[in-house]
Amino acid sequence: MASLPPTATDTTPTPAPRDTLHFPPTHQAQLAPYLPSPTTTKPSLPHVTLTFATSLDSALALAPGTQTLLSGPQSKAMTHFLRSQHDAILVGVGTAIADDPSLNCRLEGVGGYGGRELEGQPRPVVLDPMGRWDVSEESKVIRLAGEGRGKAPLVLVSDCNMWREAGEERRKLLRSVGGHYIWVPSTEVNGRHVMEWREIFSTLHDLGIKSAMVEGGAGVINGLLEPRNAELVDSVVVTIAPTWLGQGGVVVSPPKRVDQDGRRVLAARLKDVKWIPLGEDVVVCGRLGG
Amino acid sequence: MASLPPTATDTTPTPAPRDTLHFPPTHQAQLAPYLPSPTTTKPSLPHVTLTFATSLDSALALAPGTQTLLSGPQSKAMTHFLRSQHDAILVGVGTAIADDPSLNCRLEGVGGYGGRELEGQPRPVVLDPMGRWDVSEESKVIRLAGEGRGKAPLVLVSDCNMWREAGEERRKLLRSVGGHYIWVPSTEVNGRHVMEWREIFSTLHDLGIKSAMVEGGAGVINGLLEPRNAELVDSVVVTIAPTWLGQGGVVVSPPKRVDQDGRRVLAARLKDVKWIPLGEDVVVCGRLGG
Repeated sequence: MASLPPTATDTTPTPAPRDTLHFPPTHQAQLAPYLPSPTTTKPSLPHVTLTFATSLDSALALAPGTQTLLSGPQSKAMTHFLRSQHDAILVGVGTAIADDPSLNCRLEGVGGYGGRELEGQPRPVVLDPMGRWDVSEESKVIRLAGEGRGKAPLVLVSDCNMWREAGEERRKLLRSVGGHYIWVPSTEVNGRHVMEWREIFSTLHDLGIKSAMVEGGAGVINGLLEPRNAELVDSVVVTIAPTWLGQGGVVVSPPKRVDQDGRRVLAARLKDVKWIPLGEDVVVCGRLGG
Repeated sequence: MASLPPTATDTTPTPAPRDTLHFPPTHQAQLAPYLPSPTTTKPSLPHVTLTFATSLDSALALAPGTQTLLSGPQSKAMTHFLRSQHDAILVGVGTAIADDPSLNCRLEGVGGYGGRELEGQPRPVVLDPMGRWDVSEESKVIRLAGEGRGKAPLVLVSDCNMWREAGEERRKLLRSVGGHYIWVPSTEVNGRHVMEWREIFSTLHDLGIKSAMVEGGAGVINGLLEPRNAELVDSVVVTIAPTWLGQGGVVVSPPKRVDQDGRRVLAARLKDVKWIPLGEDVVVCGRLGG
């Protein structure tokens, strides 16, 4: 940990920067039943919260590889509150490449935003089976870790050959801020390496991560909404903005599902549903099943 | 009007049948700003409310030509309350064929449901440019009109040749309950007859319809969400159920839109937004634009 900057090991709170976010306690209370807590602890898997923001036509972005600002300031503050309540934030490599995301928590009072050390900062986790993410000193998540405003990422990889060449440099960079490459087994499906979600989450649990917030992208979300993965997901929190992105967007919609007689049935359903209007957006909380 | 059954011309209220719906006044008040009123009257066009129910992945139904029950009992009551507030309900021919819809209002107190005559019953309007709807004595909308539980439909057609053969029989059937075929001009696009929305609504206005609720299906909705039609739409009321139908469903998503530089931009946006949780569902009300 010698490479961490002084602010991250100092015990006095840092002053809150200007981009610090505030999420009111009344709204925090509405989300409480869906958050990780001692009563939701599982023996070998983390509490998993699936969370994302879409348009009314269920799109995350206008086109693949692009980032679209969808939700308003209150929804953004909610996302950062949720981050403060989880040990890790997980995104797919497509999101890491397209968005260059910060994957830290800017909520008032957490480490780097008025709080001590890295208290309340989640661990960024990037799912990168093929080693495609060209993480560099310019990557936001690396800069923030260097500045003591976020934790360094764990990158979950499967195909060691793919990243071996560029790998050593990236590995050194990750290590310099406290991050790691973690190997997770995968199976090859149509030439792609696919990790099993149970394997991913049990690996994270072994690494001390008792709660994980999965933020995207579409492939990750649609996979977790499939019935065979639903039991791994403890809560779902979706923000919906009052817009339509239009045809051709990057869409959340799980694979279609048929019953024993081959008839199409609902792909997924939420139970214990709560709708929370938040500014111009709405947030729906629930659990899969029902 | 000699062909209308006695219940429809009688002045004593009919007893409310068992499928009568109730929508509480508190909820009615929340919708009030989006409803037709003397202040929203336009000189030559009706007040148009676009309303539909989707899943979280913006699907109206699991597959083309099928009907999927999406929203809960409270949302259904709301739809019937909305119908009571409009002179007409409009659907595309695909919906008329796939769903055999009732297109009447079962709200407590309207004609046929505890009220006098056909008071509060909207006029069903079916958009059928090619004359595809094989309306018969078995069609729900015809049966309900015959029983004094709904008004007889207006069918908007363009291609007289298409429906001339079967047309005379259908026309007699429609007339027997008080319905009509109305001719509206169309242009041919890729071998299909397409009516202009402004023409449709001004025709309805000429026929005394001062407010129309457009209920679907996907082609109709996506067309009205296009920027060039947005000024014809006064209010939008969307019910969202906490389910995902999965890929391959019938989806609400307007055509993609690009700016002057060819960059993709939002296809449509709601302003004056209000989210109303209603049972397991949410209802979002707004106006296009903003």
